[in-house]
Amino acid sequence: MMDSPLSASLSMEELHEAWPVLSIDERLEGFRLLPTAVADDFFLALSAREQAELILHLPTSERRTWVRLLPPDDLADLVQAVEPEEADAILAQLDDASRREVNVLLAYAEDDAGGLMNPRFARVRPDMTIDEAIGYLRKQAREKVETVYYAYALDAEQRLQGVLSLRQLFQAASDKKVADVMHHDVITVSENTDQEVVSQLFAEHGFMALPVLDEQNRMKGIVTVDDIVDVVQEEATEDIQKVGGMEALEAPYFEVGFFGMLKKRIGWLLVLFLGQMLTATAMSSFEGAIERAVVLSLFVPLIISSGGNSGSQASTLIIRALALGEMRLKDWWRVARREVLSGLVLGFVLGAVGLGRIVLWQEVSGAYGEHAFLLGCAVALSVLGVVTFGTLAGSMLPLVLRRFGFDPASASAPFVATLVDVSGVVIYFTVASLLLRGTLL
Amino acid sequence: MMDSPLSASLSMEELHEAWPVLSIDERLEGFRLLPTAVADDFFLALSAREQAELILHLPTSERRTWVRLLPPDDLADLVQAVEPEEADAILAQLDDASRREVNVLLAYAEDDAGGLMNPRFARVRPDMTIDEAIGYLRKQAREKVETVYYAYALDAEQRLQGVLSLRQLFQAASDKKVADVMHHDVITVSENTDQEVVSQLFAEHGFMALPVLDEQNRMKGIVTVDDIVDVVQEEATEDIQKVGGMEALEAPYFEVGFFGMLKKRIGWLLVLFLGQMLTATAMSSFEGAIERAVVLSLFVPLIISSGGNSGSQASTLIIRALALGEMRLKDWWRVARREVLSGLVLGFVLGAVGLGRIVLWQEVSGAYGEHAFLLGCAVALSVLGVVTFGTLAGSMLPLVLRRFGFDPASASAPFVATLVDVSGVVIYFTVASLLLRGTLL
Repeated sequence: MMDSPLSASLSMEELHEAWPVLSIDERLEGFRLLPTAVADDFFLALSAREQAELILHLPTSERRTWVRLLPPDDLADLVQAVEPEEADAILAQLDDASRREVNVLLAYAEDDAGGLMNPRFARVRPDMTIDEAIGYLRKQAREKVETVYYAYALDAEQRLQGVLSLRQLFQAASDKKVADVMHHDVITVSENTDQEVVSQLFAEHGFMALPVLDEQNRMKGIVTVDDIVDVVQEEATEDIQKVGGMEALEAPYFEVGFFGMLKKRIGWLLVLFLGQMLTATAMSSFEGAIERAVVLSLFVPLIISSGGNSGSQASTLIIRALALGEMRLKDWWRVARREVLSGLVLGFVLGAVGLGRIVLWQEVSGAYGEHAFLLGCAVALSVLGVVTFGTLAGSMLPLVLRRFGFDPASASAPFVATLVDVSGVVIYFTVASLLLRGTLL
Repeated sequence: MMDSPLSASLSMEELHEAWPVLSIDERLEGFRLLPTAVADDFFLALSAREQAELILHLPTSERRTWVRLLPPDDLADLVQAVEPEEADAILAQLDDASRREVNVLLAYAEDDAGGLMNPRFARVRPDMTIDEAIGYLRKQAREKVETVYYAYALDAEQRLQGVLSLRQLFQAASDKKVADVMHHDVITVSENTDQEVVSQLFAEHGFMALPVLDEQNRMKGIVTVDDIVDVVQEEATEDIQKVGGMEALEAPYFEVGFFGMLKKRIGWLLVLFLGQMLTATAMSSFEGAIERAVVLSLFVPLIISSGGNSGSQASTLIIRALALGEMRLKDWWRVARREVLSGLVLGFVLGAVGLGRIVLWQEVSGAYGEHAFLLGCAVALSVLGVVTFGTLAGSMLPLVLRRFGFDPASASAPFVATLVDVSGVVIYFTVASLLLRGTLL
């Protein structure tokens, strides 16, 4: 072991720290150096992809322990992360009952409550006494239940009758009935509820777990809040990447291959590039004006980008408000009014600053000629118009996308900026033509 | 009640649905119409701000029940959400012991583990038997412990010796000792650990709760995963809003006042507007070139925005990777190499498309004159340069910000775009001057 980069006594934290930069052989070696007491925890904390990699590099004789350590929902994730023939090798390590459980879970879409749920939950009968219920839970915990936080009271047809937290169970007098103590009004989700809706319920209510029911109200499993932390993070990452103007990656930065990464980026860049070409077309119809007053062209980037920036702000605000359920489609009129007003105020401030800058610069250097003040007014008015239009367009676009069933987050900052740029060119040269006719033009 | 918009029998779901659009009087009325059995749950699921509003509008005689329903960590949040004199009115409803607990929590920064933690946790002694431990937990649950998921084994000085989950407790034989069953290698956080670090630990390990220790390793409380869902969502919202080019809001869209919202937006818009003025300055030094070949000005928006878009992508990617701990500062060289290569490939593709468009348009309309091909080459080369520079600058800026202690998310899409726009102008006109000297120029 002297030559090994990993010392013989390795802590979980040390290995965790080094993990991202280790090769698979080093990972295996490090994993085997962990004290047995913590190797379990370490393994369970890995991502499905990393667990699969480790298992598939272990000799077949060692695989079973690790495969069987995983609860069915994590196993289903792991199976989805590997090739089909590797999946078979992993499923072969399971007993028949567990394999059936995993296969049932694999039938659900990954982003549904069914795909997130764990079919092993703590159950009691409504007519048990509290003491009987505690005894029954101890028995279940010894067998295979992962999460004992709530106990679910089911009738003989597996239909959910009520729920009680361990705290309530512990609080209640020993001889009371479960039915007397339990909550009857339970918030549940169906197998097909989207994970974004599920995580919204967790965020609003602060639950530790939510029961999943099928169409006949039979209880199929629970979604636990620890899995929701990952969901919330993933959904936010997707939204942030889309807002930044690319397709969402499905893995950490360094784990996505070079060409895979390019593929996620080039699509939007091309669309935006083609869209942006319209600015050249728009400008070419004002080529005469530019020829007569080259000074006009100097302010094109300034004016169109102020529209793009205010549009990015507005679209980002609305995208996030929609994702968090703070706003609905039917609020569009309220949003539109508010954003037009915001755009007017923001545009007025920026326009005034722009006018001031041109007047000041003219005083200092005389760069803009005798009509500097008029030029400044044209710039200021254009900024006012472009910012107001940008703010309105940026705020409405996510709502329009949602209305037609697309992801609002596709109204990315660069997308809104491009859209507003083209209109910005038209607004600017129109305002300038009207205002400067007979002087500069 | 006939005239009331709310019917006499109101379900929790109905009220929850209507909540955002109700006035405070309607909220109070609705809340009082809830069946007592679910009013608790409804109240607990509200945000701290909403709980405070409701309590402060109740007659003093009814306040106590609701104030005392809240655990100390939620009470601390609530007190922070109201005015100082209102806080006193709320704290006056508590018994002395609880008021002391809340006051201790108020001393922590809101974004630290100390500010998130609940001081009421389930404790056992290492030398208890399993049966004694279960009995002791039942007693604690009856008093005031909120979350019974893990039991923490403390010595006489309140130092943490180990932890065991309820599942382990339930699994173990009745006469075993706690110390024989518990985990000794416990992951803990300190009172001052930042909430972003805490939530990263939850996301990586899938814990239900984490113990918080002071400097002497005495256990002060637990952070539970249900609070972390909110933290993850808040942090993501802040990052998304910053990426969109504004200051982070601290409340939902409709709850922020019109002028409060403007204040969050105008700052960055002004900074960007002032920065963007440099494009006018940069372009004015190429005024001569534009006068000689107005056609050059047509492609300015196209070229600079392609740099801005690729820069936005890159910065967003890196901002998120940093926030999720997928990448560290010391990876900067690896990132830079990868992003320069990406930029070259992306720029090459976009440049080729640009060249093709100009050549094609020339064939169709003859709009660009006899030197259209050379013009196309100048545009293509500029796009290559600008996209490569934009990608590199966009990816490095968040790392530089982090290095100097700023929030990487301030490297917003509009900020990067503005930065790259100015350099884009310089790159474009320099390339054009070199390539078109003696022909167009």
